[in-house]
Amino acid sequence: MKRINVSKNVIRRLPRYLRRLEDLSRRGVQRISSGELAVQMGLTASQIRQDFSNFGEFGQQGYGYNVETLRHAISEILGRSQGYSAILIGVGNLGSALLGNFNFEAAGFKMKAAFDVAPRLIGKEHFGVMVHHSDTLEEYLKHEKTDMAVLTVPQALANTISHSLITGGIRSIWNFTNVELHNPADSGVVIESVHFSDSLLTLSYYLTN
Amino acid sequence: MKRINVSKNVIRRLPRYLRRLEDLSRRGVQRISSGELAVQMGLTASQIRQDFSNFGEFGQQGYGYNVETLRHAISEILGRSQGYSAILIGVGNLGSALLGNFNFEAAGFKMKAAFDVAPRLIGKEHFGVMVHHSDTLEEYLKHEKTDMAVLTVPQALANTISHSLITGGIRSIWNFTNVELHNPADSGVVIESVHFSDSLLTLSYYLTN
Repeated sequence: MKRINVSKNVIRRLPRYLRRLEDLSRRGVQRISSGELAVQMGLTASQIRQDFSNFGEFGQQGYGYNVETLRHAISEILGRSQGYSAILIGVGNLGSALLGNFNFEAAGFKMKAAFDVAPRLIGKEHFGVMVHHSDTLEEYLKHEKTDMAVLTVPQALANTISHSLITGGIRSIWNFTNVELHNPADSGVVIESVHFSDSLLTLSYYLTN
Repeated sequence: MKRINVSKNVIRRLPRYLRRLEDLSRRGVQRISSGELAVQMGLTASQIRQDFSNFGEFGQQGYGYNVETLRHAISEILGRSQGYSAILIGVGNLGSALLGNFNFEAAGFKMKAAFDVAPRLIGKEHFGVMVHHSDTLEEYLKHEKTDMAVLTVPQALANTISHSLITGGIRSIWNFTNVELHNPADSGVVIESVHFSDSLLTLSYYLTN
């Protein structure tokens, strides 16, 4: 499949397409035109056709898209069946909210272990995940090849921990600390940051204008 | 200021520009060219010039942008000095994480009250915010004009509560429930949803490809 230089905007739209297609699928919709999909998503039909053309031929003139085929294809493009391994560092309120409520499996990740420094948590399962002392993180990474670390530590620790993760061989970091993490250009580590404030400021823009 | 049909992509980039400019400002940088800013943000110089041209004239040929002027302008465009009033519904792990760690003031919001049904929380301050019983939400909204509600309730309650909020006169909802909220076309209510899974699937795409 040709996958050269797919733009960031296209990649960011893929999960939205997937959500929409899953919703259509749940509602029993079997096919949809690019025009209908465009209306539902607030995009243009030509943008949708162009987005999907990055990944192959999915639509058929006069028929539109088969919802299930397209859903499956986008799911695969996003790597959801890869069974990636994950750990979580920082079992505070946010870390607990993610462990307890976020469906990592549905996104293709298996949560293997959590790390914290609070004695009341260590050595116990928290939402079905064993919590280890953060001091054992390096040792853990030596023995367990880990694809992704969720970073939900206090800001002051963000770069210390991410440094340990990167030197320890992690492949990616899902960063909730709102700190720009130092990531050496040659590390090859993928960092995806969730910036709550970006979302709230977007809301604020619409309130204001 | 001309502000007609600014595209969603431009609006979504504004908070990112603001973060970058705040970072530059903290580091004492006084001016920056669109070319430099482009490199730092992974955009093109012409895209940056085009984005800002939606809101007026900020750059100067051969000088670039004054960091402080641009930072202030974007902050105003995003409505950060409006002093919007906010409430939070659902003081579980995620709600607590936001009350305890998220800087609402920095985004221009004043957190006035929280709502939950747990007896151990009601009538007490939680991270400095008084928690009321959810049954009193309607009454509260009658007396307190409220600009924004953070929605961190369980999925099963998402649409019931958002319905109460919308009929109660809320102006916007910051939705963390991962449920698509019903929003009548004529309600005028702004809904901004944080989809954690979109972010994780974007990370997964980069891991996979």
